[in-house]
Amino acid sequence: MQTKYPIGILGATGMVGQRYIQLLENHPWFEVAWLAASDRSSGKPYGEAAKWRLDTPLPERIARMTVSPAEPTGAPKIIFASVDAPIARELEPKFAAAGCAVLSNSSAFRMAPNVPLVIPEVNAEHLHLIEEQESRKQSGGYMVTNPNCSTIGLVMALKPLEERFGIEKIFVTTLQAVSGAGYPGVPSMDILGNVVPYIGSEEEKMEAETLKLLGRLEGHAVTPLSAGITAHCNRVAVVDGHTECVSVKFRKQATREDILAAWAEFKPLAGKDLPFAPQQPVYFDGQPDRPQPRLDSNREKGMTVTVGRLRPCNLLDWKFVALSHNTVRGAAGATILNAELLANLGKLEPVAEGAARA
Amino acid sequence: MQTKYPIGILGATGMVGQRYIQLLENHPWFEVAWLAASDRSSGKPYGEAAKWRLDTPLPERIARMTVSPAEPTGAPKIIFASVDAPIARELEPKFAAAGCAVLSNSSAFRMAPNVPLVIPEVNAEHLHLIEEQESRKQSGGYMVTNPNCSTIGLVMALKPLEERFGIEKIFVTTLQAVSGAGYPGVPSMDILGNVVPYIGSEEEKMEAETLKLLGRLEGHAVTPLSAGITAHCNRVAVVDGHTECVSVKFRKQATREDILAAWAEFKPLAGKDLPFAPQQPVYFDGQPDRPQPRLDSNREKGMTVTVGRLRPCNLLDWKFVALSHNTVRGAAGATILNAELLANLGKLEPVAEGAARA
Amino acid sequence: MQTKYPIGILGATGMVGQRYIQLLENHPWFEVAWLAASDRSSGKPYGEAAKWRLDTPLPERIARMTVSPAEPTGAPKIIFASVDAPIARELEPKFAAAGCAVLSNSSAFRMAPNVPLVIPEVNAEHLHLIEEQESRKQSGGYMVTNPNCSTIGLVMALKPLEERFGIEKIFVTTLQAVSGAGYPGVPSMDILGNVVPYIGSEEEKMEAETLKLLGRLEGHAVTPLSAGITAHCNRVAVVDGHTECVSVKFRKQATREDILAAWAEFKPLAGKDLPFAPQQPVYFDGQPDRPQPRLDSNREKGMTVTVGRLRPCNLLDWKFVALSHNTVRGAAGATILNAELLANLGKLEPVAEGAARA
Amino acid sequence: MQTKYPIGILGATGMVGQRYIQLLENHPWFEVAWLAASDRSSGKPYGEAAKWRLDTPLPERIARMTVSPAEPTGAPKIIFASVDAPIARELEPKFAAAGCAVLSNSSAFRMAPNVPLVIPEVNAEHLHLIEEQESRKQSGGYMVTNPNCSTIGLVMALKPLEERFGIEKIFVTTLQAVSGAGYPGVPSMDILGNVVPYIGSEEEKMEAETLKLLGRLEGHAVTPLSAGITAHCNRVAVVDGHTECVSVKFRKQATREDILAAWAEFKPLAGKDLPFAPQQPVYFDGQPDRPQPRLDSNREKGMTVTVGRLRPCNLLDWKFVALSHNTVRGAAGATILNAELLANLGKLEPVAEGAARA
Repeated sequence: MQTKYPIGILGATGMVGQRYIQLLENHPWFEVAWLAASDRSSGKPYGEAAKWRLDTPLPERIARMTVSPAEPTGAPKIIFASVDAPIARELEPKFAAAGCAVLSNSSAFRMAPNVPLVIPEVNAEHLHLIEEQESRKQSGGYMVTNPNCSTIGLVMALKPLEERFGIEKIFVTTLQAVSGAGYPGVPSMDILGNVVPYIGSEEEKMEAETLKLLGRLEGHAVTPLSAGITAHCNRVAVVDGHTECVSVKFRKQATREDILAAWAEFKPLAGKDLPFAPQQPVYFDGQPDRPQPRLDSNREKGMTVTVGRLRPCNLLDWKFVALSHNTVRGAAGATILNAELLANLGKLEPVAEGAARA
Repeated sequence: MQTKYPIGILGATGMVGQRYIQLLENHPWFEVAWLAASDRSSGKPYGEAAKWRLDTPLPERIARMTVSPAEPTGAPKIIFASVDAPIARELEPKFAAAGCAVLSNSSAFRMAPNVPLVIPEVNAEHLHLIEEQESRKQSGGYMVTNPNCSTIGLVMALKPLEERFGIEKIFVTTLQAVSGAGYPGVPSMDILGNVVPYIGSEEEKMEAETLKLLGRLEGHAVTPLSAGITAHCNRVAVVDGHTECVSVKFRKQATREDILAAWAEFKPLAGKDLPFAPQQPVYFDGQPDRPQPRLDSNREKGMTVTVGRLRPCNLLDWKFVALSHNTVRGAAGATILNAELLANLGKLEPVAEGAARA
Repeated sequence: MQTKYPIGILGATGMVGQRYIQLLENHPWFEVAWLAASDRSSGKPYGEAAKWRLDTPLPERIARMTVSPAEPTGAPKIIFASVDAPIARELEPKFAAAGCAVLSNSSAFRMAPNVPLVIPEVNAEHLHLIEEQESRKQSGGYMVTNPNCSTIGLVMALKPLEERFGIEKIFVTTLQAVSGAGYPGVPSMDILGNVVPYIGSEEEKMEAETLKLLGRLEGHAVTPLSAGITAHCNRVAVVDGHTECVSVKFRKQATREDILAAWAEFKPLAGKDLPFAPQQPVYFDGQPDRPQPRLDSNREKGMTVTVGRLRPCNLLDWKFVALSHNTVRGAAGATILNAELLANLGKLEPVAEGAARA
Repeated sequence: MQTKYPIGILGATGMVGQRYIQLLENHPWFEVAWLAASDRSSGKPYGEAAKWRLDTPLPERIARMTVSPAEPTGAPKIIFASVDAPIARELEPKFAAAGCAVLSNSSAFRMAPNVPLVIPEVNAEHLHLIEEQESRKQSGGYMVTNPNCSTIGLVMALKPLEERFGIEKIFVTTLQAVSGAGYPGVPSMDILGNVVPYIGSEEEKMEAETLKLLGRLEGHAVTPLSAGITAHCNRVAVVDGHTECVSVKFRKQATREDILAAWAEFKPLAGKDLPFAPQQPVYFDGQPDRPQPRLDSNREKGMTVTVGRLRPCNLLDWKFVALSHNTVRGAAGATILNAELLANLGKLEPVAEGAARA
């Protein structure tokens, strides 16, 4: 047990914070060692500070832990962060400056030129950007981000296609689950028997993040993919699981078989043995009415993106549907998999040692 | 009261049949005089044969009417029809041959070259096609169809734009209500907390019907609009109201103000005093998160299409959201408005006279 | 138009405040003249201060009205109030002291001995309690309350039975709509595909209010009905309409026919011509699976309570289901009907005159 | 692997049939060996015959199995059955006569005097009734039933209280999930944003089954518990998990602590090591707003009944809320646990041997 990396969670009482706790229970490499939240929660036992909303019991050990103030003193050297952007903007650099590896689900620094925005299966090489960060040179600390919950399903589905056929144009409409808005989040009066065809800043995030993730690391920066992209984002009455309708235009011709092969053979992490890496990152379901959020979100513990309904598009080349679990693959699991990759690359060692020395 | 047109309803026990009954109660021109349904219902009082699913009481007069067999003998000369396509394919021509004006919500004949597919605000002139029908020459009877529930909101929103700017490309993703699938229709196990990203034949219908509706009557046939269109259709947990995310490319440049003016000034039926024609067929709601099905479907008794979220599209020119009440504007109300227009054009008189003579 | 009573609304931006505005549009006797809300809203146009959540458009005249501070100066002499209990506790007596008739949907004073808790069809005579209020003597102002949204459906259904058979024991389980919790109210994460078997203080309110409403005015106070009552309250994924499962034990024997007759003949306001009084306050629907909130809440514009499923109870005498529209009959409509009754009794005149003099 | 009991499933394509398959995957004692369904499915591969509605993938081995006709020839000697009552009435005795142990979730024979209706934690001793069955003497075959999905949560919660305090009166109102009605089951038009306060025969089943389950085996028959019970049954918009509001009157006085102790100490299967027996069959959650179906149904893999909101009742003694997973603890898991108990008691051996001999 003493060989596990101690993990601190910033924003521990929120929806994604709760998922970190749920997913890290029994994690072979990581152990929750420190929980921080807003001043209102600080000093209370976690079980009292958090309104636990997940369908597995809150682990007793965690329930008894005292919520710490959100500052680096006393925190472990590996921090999983999921807090609102304005707070992240202030706090995350502080932790990095204090020598922490800050693995963040927050949007604050995703588009910063020297901060890697990473999905391990997609653009692991962007992690080199951490060496561009001032804190890295000073204290060893750094920031790594994972994408928005709606971006990640799209990019996972597109990456194998981009590799083989090149992508020129992307059209995407989302049907997003309410858990993506946190808790209390979306009022029930807004979503029961309803659709809300608007999520603040979501379309802009999806468009920008997708191009950065599919971009190329050149020298000290990422050149975003040169492709056109437009997003329509909607909230629907689903608890977990974002559904995305995608049309795509390729640079090279691709048959249905080519596309299915690209997805089936996309296993960039094979052999690395990362605990949260799914065997089949992008799974194609050939049934005519799939994927569906209630039935398919949990594939491979919520880390697989399920695609389906591949068919020709009258305007672009092909259209399909992609589905991903928005608080697992799209948030907490994304952070964890980034951490596993960093551990695999030896990038957690110095900070963990730092922790040991502290 | 004796001056009202007697109306027969084919498919009277279904969801759209129920809407016909609801919407025709107190209609100033039309009166339900005959109800037909499948053999199982025939001979029973309507109140017993139908499982009434609407939130206004079933009118007592209707509840006591006996359901007739689905054949022309004894039926009035104006028929509103909403039955499954295979049944429509067999029955509707029979009624037309027997001298009836068959106003149909069924999909069977929508794409037939000599059958008008009409939205009164969009393409009233297509009604001339009835003169191409054999039955018209023989018995005076004819068939007129209204579009699929998902087509109608899209086309209403596009028509004013097509008129002013020309349309080159259309991208649409739908989030459709369950009432569109009839009753029992969608199983609750499929849609509670879920999305079904597939509706059989819906995408094909939307694509084909849209181009016919926006097409031009030339000689004896309609030349479809020459534009590219692609549709993604989804079922969501909404009772009434189809939400549609649209991107569109014009032939001429159009500013935001141009588009808003095109919608605001689109009043092609003004002055005709048709009871079901909304004052504002396409209403723009400027709030950032509208239209929404639960809040906006019933605008002008469900006959107005509400549009919102007009903003530039990175791939085409503009994107917006359109919403329409799928069983009113998109089905029963569509048939009724077609009938009102035909009455206004004097095209119901001969058949009604025929009825009077019978 | 100048003959209408000017009405002030306290808590105008809330869910019930919005319903007051919706229901008073085109009211023959009352006209909204003044809107007050929290300091945050005060000074803004109502259309900007309120997030309108109803499915009819916000009237333009109201949208342009400026929200006033929540104090009596400048307010009309008839106030409809729906604010949280702690605020009501402070504000409502101030308005009464200033000479206003305060008709309140708030819970703060419902159980106060000298404040009438009234449903016009049930206990109009309790209105005499206003003469016991200090403010009435000083300034003419007074407070009248209507019950909790869950109480009102139960009591309407029970009153005709209590009159004829006497009630000894009441068992009730509620399935309550989310609109009863206001906006933002219940988080969607709590109620999508879920039941919350708890609503703070609701069971206590239902139990106490029911006995006061069915009680007898004796001298200067109401003696509550001497009966046993127990309530289980639940929140379910319904927008509007509280469903209540009731078992009841009578003091006298009652057959099924006796009970149906009691409900059918219960028309205590007949002849008074109050605009919001339903023709049939308690309507029995004999279908096996009714009433249902989505289908039956709007009966007689939401002012009728629908009952059904009358059948023997193994433990008490009879069981049945009652349904009422919780924000119309159960809140805003209840206040309005109380105001209509007070107008009919001449109890609004002095305060309205006071307003005229001011 | 060859030591596992081969299991046949009657009604394999239905919702409970699917749960049997899901829950038996990797079961240490049982292995699905034979699948039967209606004639329409017979002869097809299971993956084609069944519309799989669960959120874990259909096991490939099962998908490839051919669906057999629903007759004993070629079937294993242990049959799990979940078919409609009329079909069960005909088929189950045939299988028993052919020497099978028929463990049934169907309602057909639950109330038959010589058929045990069993929950292992509640009334294991009722299993002796199988010796009263004619088939047992002839062929060794017999029938054992488990209760209705709504009964089981109630009875599990009541049994520890009945043992210690005696039960005199039971009042229960249910809020039941749609999965209890099978597939397609409840139409979405009936339940979206709605409550259906009626489930055919459900109240009668709950009332009768509860008293039989809590009854005493005396000689050759079960004497039902002598207690009063009344049930109100409702369908709500929940996928899995029945919520039940219960009031109960005891024969002896019981404090809150007494009741909590009765539940906490109720572990009648401890030491038997049955794979599906939960550690804590009845778990009390002390949070004010629990249990909730979305959060608590899956406790101990869906086999635990969660209780909460224990508080005094004004009419009876105590009231509380009970929640159980209706297709696991309330159906498929119930059958499996019955089979495990029978295996533990050696009552599967003869039939299994029979199977081996066949």
